[in-house]
Amino acid sequence: MAASERLIDAAEVAKHNTTESCWAILYGQVWDVTDFLPEHPGGANIVLKLAGKDATEEYDPVHPPGTLEENLDPSKCLGPIDPKSLPEPVQAAKNIGLEADDSRPVPLANLLNLDEIEAAATKKLSKKGWAYYYSASDDLQSKHLNNTVYRSILLRPRVFVDCKECDQSTTFLGHKLDTPIYVSPAAMARLAHPDGEWGIAQACKNYGAMQIISNNASMTPEQIVQDAGPNQVFGWQLYVQTERKKSEDYLARINKLDAIKFICLTLDAPVPGKREDDERSKNITEDTDEAIKDAGGQKLKGGGGIGQSLFFGTDPSLTWKETLPWLKKQTNKPIILKGLQTHEDAYIAAQHAPQVQGIILSNHGGRALDTAPPSIHTLLEIRKYCPEVFSKIDVIIDGGIKRGTDIVKALCLGAKAVGIGRGALFGLGAGGIEGVERTLEILRDETATCMRLLGAKTVPELGLHFINTRAADRDIYDGPANLPGIAGAVQGLVARAKL
Amino acid sequence: MAASERLIDAAEVAKHNTTESCWAILYGQVWDVTDFLPEHPGGANIVLKLAGKDATEEYDPVHPPGTLEENLDPSKCLGPIDPKSLPEPVQAAKNIGLEADDSRPVPLANLLNLDEIEAAATKKLSKKGWAYYYSASDDLQSKHLNNTVYRSILLRPRVFVDCKECDQSTTFLGHKLDTPIYVSPAAMARLAHPDGEWGIAQACKNYGAMQIISNNASMTPEQIVQDAGPNQVFGWQLYVQTERKKSEDYLARINKLDAIKFICLTLDAPVPGKREDDERSKNITEDTDEAIKDAGGQKLKGGGGIGQSLFFGTDPSLTWKETLPWLKKQTNKPIILKGLQTHEDAYIAAQHAPQVQGIILSNHGGRALDTAPPSIHTLLEIRKYCPEVFSKIDVIIDGGIKRGTDIVKALCLGAKAVGIGRGALFGLGAGGIEGVERTLEILRDETATCMRLLGAKTVPELGLHFINTRAADRDIYDGPANLPGIAGAVQGLVARAKL
Amino acid sequence: MAASERLIDAAEVAKHNTTESCWAILYGQVWDVTDFLPEHPGGANIVLKLAGKDATEEYDPVHPPGTLEENLDPSKCLGPIDPKSLPEPVQAAKNIGLEADDSRPVPLANLLNLDEIEAAATKKLSKKGWAYYYSASDDLQSKHLNNTVYRSILLRPRVFVDCKECDQSTTFLGHKLDTPIYVSPAAMARLAHPDGEWGIAQACKNYGAMQIISNNASMTPEQIVQDAGPNQVFGWQLYVQTERKKSEDYLARINKLDAIKFICLTLDAPVPGKREDDERSKNITEDTDEAIKDAGGQKLKGGGGIGQSLFFGTDPSLTWKETLPWLKKQTNKPIILKGLQTHEDAYIAAQHAPQVQGIILSNHGGRALDTAPPSIHTLLEIRKYCPEVFSKIDVIIDGGIKRGTDIVKALCLGAKAVGIGRGALFGLGAGGIEGVERTLEILRDETATCMRLLGAKTVPELGLHFINTRAADRDIYDGPANLPGIAGAVQGLVARAKL
Amino acid sequence: MAASERLIDAAEVAKHNTTESCWAILYGQVWDVTDFLPEHPGGANIVLKLAGKDATEEYDPVHPPGTLEENLDPSKCLGPIDPKSLPEPVQAAKNIGLEADDSRPVPLANLLNLDEIEAAATKKLSKKGWAYYYSASDDLQSKHLNNTVYRSILLRPRVFVDCKECDQSTTFLGHKLDTPIYVSPAAMARLAHPDGEWGIAQACKNYGAMQIISNNASMTPEQIVQDAGPNQVFGWQLYVQTERKKSEDYLARINKLDAIKFICLTLDAPVPGKREDDERSKNITEDTDEAIKDAGGQKLKGGGGIGQSLFFGTDPSLTWKETLPWLKKQTNKPIILKGLQTHEDAYIAAQHAPQVQGIILSNHGGRALDTAPPSIHTLLEIRKYCPEVFSKIDVIIDGGIKRGTDIVKALCLGAKAVGIGRGALFGLGAGGIEGVERTLEILRDETATCMRLLGAKTVPELGLHFINTRAADRDIYDGPANLPGIAGAVQGLVARAKL
Repeated sequence: MAASERLIDAAEVAKHNTTESCWAILYGQVWDVTDFLPEHPGGANIVLKLAGKDATEEYDPVHPPGTLEENLDPSKCLGPIDPKSLPEPVQAAKNIGLEADDSRPVPLANLLNLDEIEAAATKKLSKKGWAYYYSASDDLQSKHLNNTVYRSILLRPRVFVDCKECDQSTTFLGHKLDTPIYVSPAAMARLAHPDGEWGIAQACKNYGAMQIISNNASMTPEQIVQDAGPNQVFGWQLYVQTERKKSEDYLARINKLDAIKFICLTLDAPVPGKREDDERSKNITEDTDEAIKDAGGQKLKGGGGIGQSLFFGTDPSLTWKETLPWLKKQTNKPIILKGLQTHEDAYIAAQHAPQVQGIILSNHGGRALDTAPPSIHTLLEIRKYCPEVFSKIDVIIDGGIKRGTDIVKALCLGAKAVGIGRGALFGLGAGGIEGVERTLEILRDETATCMRLLGAKTVPELGLHFINTRAADRDIYDGPANLPGIAGAVQGLVARAKL
Repeated sequence: MAASERLIDAAEVAKHNTTESCWAILYGQVWDVTDFLPEHPGGANIVLKLAGKDATEEYDPVHPPGTLEENLDPSKCLGPIDPKSLPEPVQAAKNIGLEADDSRPVPLANLLNLDEIEAAATKKLSKKGWAYYYSASDDLQSKHLNNTVYRSILLRPRVFVDCKECDQSTTFLGHKLDTPIYVSPAAMARLAHPDGEWGIAQACKNYGAMQIISNNASMTPEQIVQDAGPNQVFGWQLYVQTERKKSEDYLARINKLDAIKFICLTLDAPVPGKREDDERSKNITEDTDEAIKDAGGQKLKGGGGIGQSLFFGTDPSLTWKETLPWLKKQTNKPIILKGLQTHEDAYIAAQHAPQVQGIILSNHGGRALDTAPPSIHTLLEIRKYCPEVFSKIDVIIDGGIKRGTDIVKALCLGAKAVGIGRGALFGLGAGGIEGVERTLEILRDETATCMRLLGAKTVPELGLHFINTRAADRDIYDGPANLPGIAGAVQGLVARAKL
Repeated sequence: MAASERLIDAAEVAKHNTTESCWAILYGQVWDVTDFLPEHPGGANIVLKLAGKDATEEYDPVHPPGTLEENLDPSKCLGPIDPKSLPEPVQAAKNIGLEADDSRPVPLANLLNLDEIEAAATKKLSKKGWAYYYSASDDLQSKHLNNTVYRSILLRPRVFVDCKECDQSTTFLGHKLDTPIYVSPAAMARLAHPDGEWGIAQACKNYGAMQIISNNASMTPEQIVQDAGPNQVFGWQLYVQTERKKSEDYLARINKLDAIKFICLTLDAPVPGKREDDERSKNITEDTDEAIKDAGGQKLKGGGGIGQSLFFGTDPSLTWKETLPWLKKQTNKPIILKGLQTHEDAYIAAQHAPQVQGIILSNHGGRALDTAPPSIHTLLEIRKYCPEVFSKIDVIIDGGIKRGTDIVKALCLGAKAVGIGRGALFGLGAGGIEGVERTLEILRDETATCMRLLGAKTVPELGLHFINTRAADRDIYDGPANLPGIAGAVQGLVARAKL
Repeated sequence: MAASERLIDAAEVAKHNTTESCWAILYGQVWDVTDFLPEHPGGANIVLKLAGKDATEEYDPVHPPGTLEENLDPSKCLGPIDPKSLPEPVQAAKNIGLEADDSRPVPLANLLNLDEIEAAATKKLSKKGWAYYYSASDDLQSKHLNNTVYRSILLRPRVFVDCKECDQSTTFLGHKLDTPIYVSPAAMARLAHPDGEWGIAQACKNYGAMQIISNNASMTPEQIVQDAGPNQVFGWQLYVQTERKKSEDYLARINKLDAIKFICLTLDAPVPGKREDDERSKNITEDTDEAIKDAGGQKLKGGGGIGQSLFFGTDPSLTWKETLPWLKKQTNKPIILKGLQTHEDAYIAAQHAPQVQGIILSNHGGRALDTAPPSIHTLLEIRKYCPEVFSKIDVIIDGGIKRGTDIVKALCLGAKAVGIGRGALFGLGAGGIEGVERTLEILRDETATCMRLLGAKTVPELGLHFINTRAADRDIYDGPANLPGIAGAVQGLVARAKL
């Protein structure tokens, strides 16, 4: 190296610690690494952190000899450091405990996955809010299955596929979504954060995700959509009320909101499931000695919880024959049905196209009927027994999504988009709008990584050959189809469903 | 809002905390919410708890803006609160630990499921009583399977079914039961509570459940049925004694009790199983240094326990050919057989109709032979190999029931009713009659919720299409049928049972 | 009751606490229960424990009213107790912790199962002895499978079968065994207890069990068989030595011992498995700083352990063609082969009858090749692909036996007897001869209970219809049979083994 | 015994403690056991440890009476010990805790398996190094599966096979390897130990194993191969750079190294997987308050970690059509492809022979796409759907190898060699060159033991009949083959892959 032999003082080196001039001491030589910053494989930041200092210990074990010489002109070697000018070496604490300081809040950017976001939110939420979000029915079997069934599906990555470009956009009812993710109609977002459902909307706008507004939102639909972007897509969830007039009035109000593109009629919870964590939180926060009574003075056993309260007034008597025509009269917006859990109902829904334009496969986050199938089972059933459904209506799906790989698996099976409920609420709880954004960012990035590693450039390219569903397949229903009322028309379906 | 601008004093508000006059402070305004009490979605009680106080913090996150205005006349807004009259805010303990005070007994109404009832009873029972109830044979494999096999069966909820009305009544031997639940013949109820088997009878009366009285009850049958309701249904369990005269005398006594509608001949425990927890409890409560000896002075190894004692005198030599005709001579009451564990025996029993009118599929709560099949396996075997059994005799089933969903699954497979043994005893231990009532209430309500969420209005509507039994199906017996003595008559059965 | 009204003093009652005269205070009355002792369902002892005392608290909850009156003559009610003479009631410690005093040794009679015997032995054994017995190869997968595969097989109890008589005797090579249990050839019994292999022989004599003496026994065969009973059955295990003369001399010595009925040629461990617990125990008990060297001064890595030492000199080059004829020349005793793990080898062995008269299916207790199949797999393979083996040679089996139900399951599949290795050694460690007896007693009693509850009166009655092996069936080998050298003769077998 | 009756002094005995003269006291007699040293079954060392001392306590329980007399001339019994000369017996600490001193480093020779080597390395590595090696994608599902799938495959040991000789050598691309093990191209070895990749090379040389040098090695290829043995086999891994010239220059440099026998083009990680442990370690070792920015000042969320850094510049746009011809032009060395995860890609690769001469089935150690299949699944897929691949190209495999049995299972399925990645790095971390040697020694010895116990003398003898893969078989992909572009040519494959 052509550097002069003048010894350089460490104090002089220390001044060069910016992107304009960045020096570092390596193996006793001072190097000017400014030119190397933009092309450092690990990013500029990792270099800047060591700028102005002796970086040898950090640099040495991860770079083969010759790396400096290959990447920098010899003139960048400025000469030897004056060893006397270096500070006394401090014995580095080599093994910093990974769990070190658990009390200090972790920056959102450092939360790496949805479980960490849930953990961060759990620390911040009130017990009541946590219990309402976390709870599911009975023994949480369906909630648990929702997630584990995704883990049992294996991916099949292909090699030698150019995946420089990767486009994860999808469509739903003809609307383009930048990412195949939607926020499920989850109630009471302000229990998590004052930003509430409006906050979720802001995050969705920034990531091109769809949002379905809960009938039990803690903000008005007008508030929620007020800052909608030009292409932002909202749906509005309807629980039909026994007092039908209330629902009609509400629909009339929704009809005026252009940002709301469709009505999502919820069917998976005609009566509330038994969410014990939710009920238990009420038992605890309230006085447990005196029995809880209803308005008429009748003793209520069990806690009730928020979940029970919200169902007050919901009509449990909806039918294909009467409810759909009534709803059609109330709105011109497209109608989708939420909560289908059998291929038979998906089949019947498709028979009702175009009156019905889409369906959501959902077991209500495991919050309605425990041991109901995970929605991926329903998707597999449709794929197996009546795949023509996918060509007649748009199928989307929620329940148990924790990873981009989960999303991609559902898309491979024919879903147009995949919903998160608790994920968005815990994001909100962890950090308001930015927390929801972090949730969406994680899922979007994981989805992109998964598609690239599979070798799929676009959502339509995703298909059955990318997944191995054998473990799940052996558990899906294989009894006879049950199609009361339309038996004649669907002999094909009946025949295909093995007895 | 037309409220006057006079500031209202908090002391004045505090007086209005009843159903007659109920005020609350919300967003700095005092509202008269009396009219809203009967229609509050969460029930009146939740409002009354906040009556007379500032409810804003509780109210805000769960109600969208405008909720008050939509539900109450403007005149109900009485005016602004005088802020100076409000008490100093106390920093609310936001996160009350859900596990907080574990020592204080939980009110029965707050016990949410059968596991919590068992836990409550376990705290109250003597070790000996607990050990007798809890114990099962050997390694508790069958006891464990009894419950987990239900979890492996998935439900198939249907949408758009009017489930406003839901009737869970069933029949057994022609008798109507309000709920498809019966209490299995479990011995020694007074180990749990002085109310004993009579107490169980009172609870069954209130819930329209059936009760089968144990041959080893800790009260006389006369005591147990003495307060029976007019339509209450009892059965009486018979263990045939080697000294046949004792059984004949007992049957003569039972024949006089009208409330007892049938005789339940128990066959699943001709000799006692090895219940180690039960035996162990005896080892501990007794002196362990000197060996236990029998009456003849012979050393007895192992503990013995209550279970062993109760079998003394039971006849292990019963046969189809001799026992049934003998029993038929002793009583005019219908006879059912308890403890069938193979489809072959169910088939043979059905061949004996009308001498035999019903069967109980049971592995004796896992207390007889360990690794015997869970009774749901036997039900699946019958369904698969000889479903004609269901049309000839009434089939009921017990073992492992913890949830209403378990009950509904057994009904879907053809059972007429479903039994609980430990469930009733632990209920009794947790709170006497009221404890058993709470047990029945939980199961009844869970059963109703399950039927509604499935979309089934009555028990007869329940059928195979509501359940996915694939995981269980792959484990049931598929070897040849073994029908010694009646081979000629059942070629069909033999052929259907795949080799 | 006609008892006189004189008050009886508690001191007087206290004297009557023997089988000759046994009084008890019940509900304030003194009863003479001497006559009741022999027929008390719970045994006399339970009554004697309360003799001379107030037994009301113990008696009441487990007896229905009227029990005394039904079972005893009125004259046995001697009159009321003098309440003043009773001692002050001591508040009974109701809930004695079941785990109370863990340090005091538990009497053998109170050890209820083989796990408890192992636990008791583990406390008494030296680390070295424990490690040698407990250890198995690599990750203990086969050892674990050995046991769990039995749990996965379900039993099918039949009802209405007279099981008053139950005979569990079996035969092996024409010799009668009172119980279908044998002790496998396990080495080094004196590591467990000074009684050693001779002690095992004494226990086997008392229970009519068979014993196969290890080639590596810690006592001479002459010592072991010296007190043999007239019908006692021994086998002797042969590991053929490279130095063939040593084996020939040993066989000549064995030929002279009449109690030894057969030679058991061991084939499942031509080289030792890697038993890490065993090796580790050596690492610890010895100096770990200096490397272990062999006789030639060569460094030995790994611990070695007892297991490795014992294999020194064993010949790893045995073959069907050369070894069997050689062995036949050395002895007139019948020959059996130990360690077969495939149906192919069982098939070939049966082709060698009568030169070979029996086989032991064994994976050497999981101590040879890890992830080798549990022997029950091999039994299922034979049953499926070449059941004719059972008619040509006697098949016995060991590995993983913990319960009588395990034994019965193997018998149902065609085994003539079932072996325990560690079970006997841990019995020996827990209490010498009496410990082995307790082990055999537990298994014998559990076997009888299982047969009775199944409805099988004799071993030959046991068959496939008593077990449901579906879970195990789906894991057994279904590839092509591999029969080098005798391909032509066994087309049937090859065809049956599905590709 | 002919020994004189003169009492021998313990001090005299103590002098004879060498291989030249070795005395021991047994049962009160002094024996000269020098002649016995070379033939002691447990090795000479175990005797020498007791030389010069009273060995009775150690000797007695593991030797039957008569052992001394059978093995030594009577003249070797030198006479009785003088009991007064013996030291006071010290009460031996019988039960030395196996876990005793956990802080002292365990000698390499005492590490018995790869888990223990990983544990030893984990203690020595920096957190950063550990996190980089240990980490895998997302939830570590594929990493976990990689190992557990091997456990689910059972071995089928055959008896009566002469396994005195056992040759585990194999070939790859025509080169002979003494052991069927290779070191996968794992990056950054100097994070573990200064010996780095050169150290791995030294260990491989000593064991005849193959090494594939990582494109991201922390030493230059010239350094790594500089001490290569004459028959040592290296491959060099290529990640094609977007800046293609860089790759071309690097290849030109590799072409000059004769020790490198082939180029391994890596395809399983066109973009980096999400290795959270790795990213997390960066979050912790760096300042977490200020957001990490890239060179352009753009905020980077998530940690990044070493794994992310290394991918900088990697080209994600490789294709069959363009990349292979380009690479062929750069080198005359044979080309193999790494990271195939479907039978379709293996099939296509075989169609490209001889341009492609081998493939590595790999999911990148679970570090690329989580829930990608374990490579053994891919091997099973090829075996099932297109076994002709094995005759056209050499197939090797890595991922999850922990035991010799794992290696043998992969060989039985058709792999030519089996790779370890983390295993070698953790060996390096545990003890530099000697640590890697210990890793290879363990696997080589376990492989030999497994082959011997199976009854296989050479690698080519290994085949499907030695393994039972049923549990794994039921989980492998059974959907249609996806072969874009070459559909016409492979109807056979498509037909065989069941729909």
